[in-house]
Amino acid sequence: MKVGFIGLGIMGTPMAEKLIAGGHQLYANTLHQVPPELVEKGAIACATPKQVAEQADVIFIMVPDTPQVEEVLFAANGCAEAQLKNKILVDMSSISPLETKAFAKRINQLGADYLDAPVSGGEVGAKQGSLTIMVGGDEGVFGRVKPLLALMGKNITLVGGNGDGQTCKVANQIIVALTIEAVSEALIFASKAGADPARVREALMGGFASSRILEVHGERMIKRTFEPGFRISLHQKDLNLALQGAKSLALSLPNTATCQELFNLCAANGAKDLDHSALVQALEIMANHKVSG
Amino acid sequence: MKVGFIGLGIMGTPMAEKLIAGGHQLYANTLHQVPPELVEKGAIACATPKQVAEQADVIFIMVPDTPQVEEVLFAANGCAEAQLKNKILVDMSSISPLETKAFAKRINQLGADYLDAPVSGGEVGAKQGSLTIMVGGDEGVFGRVKPLLALMGKNITLVGGNGDGQTCKVANQIIVALTIEAVSEALIFASKAGADPARVREALMGGFASSRILEVHGERMIKRTFEPGFRISLHQKDLNLALQGAKSLALSLPNTATCQELFNLCAANGAKDLDHSALVQALEIMANHKVSG
Repeated sequence: MKVGFIGLGIMGTPMAEKLIAGGHQLYANTLHQVPPELVEKGAIACATPKQVAEQADVIFIMVPDTPQVEEVLFAANGCAEAQLKNKILVDMSSISPLETKAFAKRINQLGADYLDAPVSGGEVGAKQGSLTIMVGGDEGVFGRVKPLLALMGKNITLVGGNGDGQTCKVANQIIVALTIEAVSEALIFASKAGADPARVREALMGGFASSRILEVHGERMIKRTFEPGFRISLHQKDLNLALQGAKSLALSLPNTATCQELFNLCAANGAKDLDHSALVQALEIMANHKVSG
Repeated sequence: MKVGFIGLGIMGTPMAEKLIAGGHQLYANTLHQVPPELVEKGAIACATPKQVAEQADVIFIMVPDTPQVEEVLFAANGCAEAQLKNKILVDMSSISPLETKAFAKRINQLGADYLDAPVSGGEVGAKQGSLTIMVGGDEGVFGRVKPLLALMGKNITLVGGNGDGQTCKVANQIIVALTIEAVSEALIFASKAGADPARVREALMGGFASSRILEVHGERMIKRTFEPGFRISLHQKDLNLALQGAKSLALSLPNTATCQELFNLCAANGAKDLDHSALVQALEIMANHKVSG
């Protein structure tokens, strides 16, 4: 199949490679130069998103945030300037669920289908082809694109209609951030009270406090291994989507708001490029005490 | 062995039954009348904690909060009035870690050993003998008492010295409350944004957002099954231990503080005897929107 890929960064490049490896002709575009290793593997570099959309039947987008998706779709030389009839646009970026619904409507009016399909699993998941993919859109369209998604990910779920994939991703990022914060509060309490946080963590695993975050990020906090992983600056972006969404929806998310403030505190202290488990450092700064003693 | 049990409420009665079933002579005392079913099974009812401590070699305590433990130990007709030399006091109540250290020191000065051994698992765990038990105290003393604890629980861990068992329990209650709150924020965001919270929850299970709380309490929120379980009023008591402890330790626990406010909001709206997963109702009240639609 002729597939397009727009946005060839840390995530997009390995994802596009999986599509080529799956036997598909790839039309590629990115803000700067298409990576030479992709062209060597057979990708055709296109000068604009419009050119990608003219050539390919299914066009994937993987860019940083909502304004970049809007640009790729609707700016001069964007996808919307191509003849889109019967084509499918699949936005795998993590962006605003509310804007996504509007983008999908505009694309549908041009005769094309739209899926929002944000991922979790990071660079490692992209390289392994093991991303979790949360999809919003029409069930029939999902069925047609699923074999392509299956080249990039493993746990692929149709959550609902357009926007619901992005909503699910935001929900994921809320839970992950707030659980990291929960483990941080528990471990710093234990440490300050004179207990060994490593033994406390072990005692809690298997009970009602157990989670993937306690397992993986709890260990990072105790062992002080804060190289990313998933950077604080990216999680700040995702919580911004949650908080902006909450404002639009007339919804109060008190602990998401506090969590964002704690990430801001980390960033103010030079930790924005550390793994998000370094959120614990915000509480440590406030208490002048390290979890690991 | 001659064992004592002080505090025969919803938790204490089935725990004491396990000790009798294990072949031990039980000396029992509680604020009101010792339950007749315990006496029928062979328990000897004692008029005061002092009488229990005079008869038994290992004395278990299971009462509501810190002041009640202090009363059982040190008030008139309390344990400390008995000859305690070479005896072991085991406090299985969930109380202040800081006060526990002071209680242990005073009991040690009377020639007796002290373990703090709070539990999680609730009434169901007590009846099944499957409680999780988090122990603080001397390793040798722990070894001597462990066969008795094994009659009441399954996952039994020596976390550290006196107070560390209580500290671990507080850490557990912080994580459980804050994870319930995290799942609440995620599901109400999803629901308000128009997605199906049940499908969002399913898509998130298995990923980094996964936890026992998402599994069990997330389902309760969606199905609106809020009969306890673990009551909001009890979790309020436990978060109070966390917040009082944080104050004493000069530590900031911002999301624990907010969580307690949300439990207070639930209690103000008649939900204090519902399961703690009903915390989601606080966010629902604030947003005038139900997660289940």
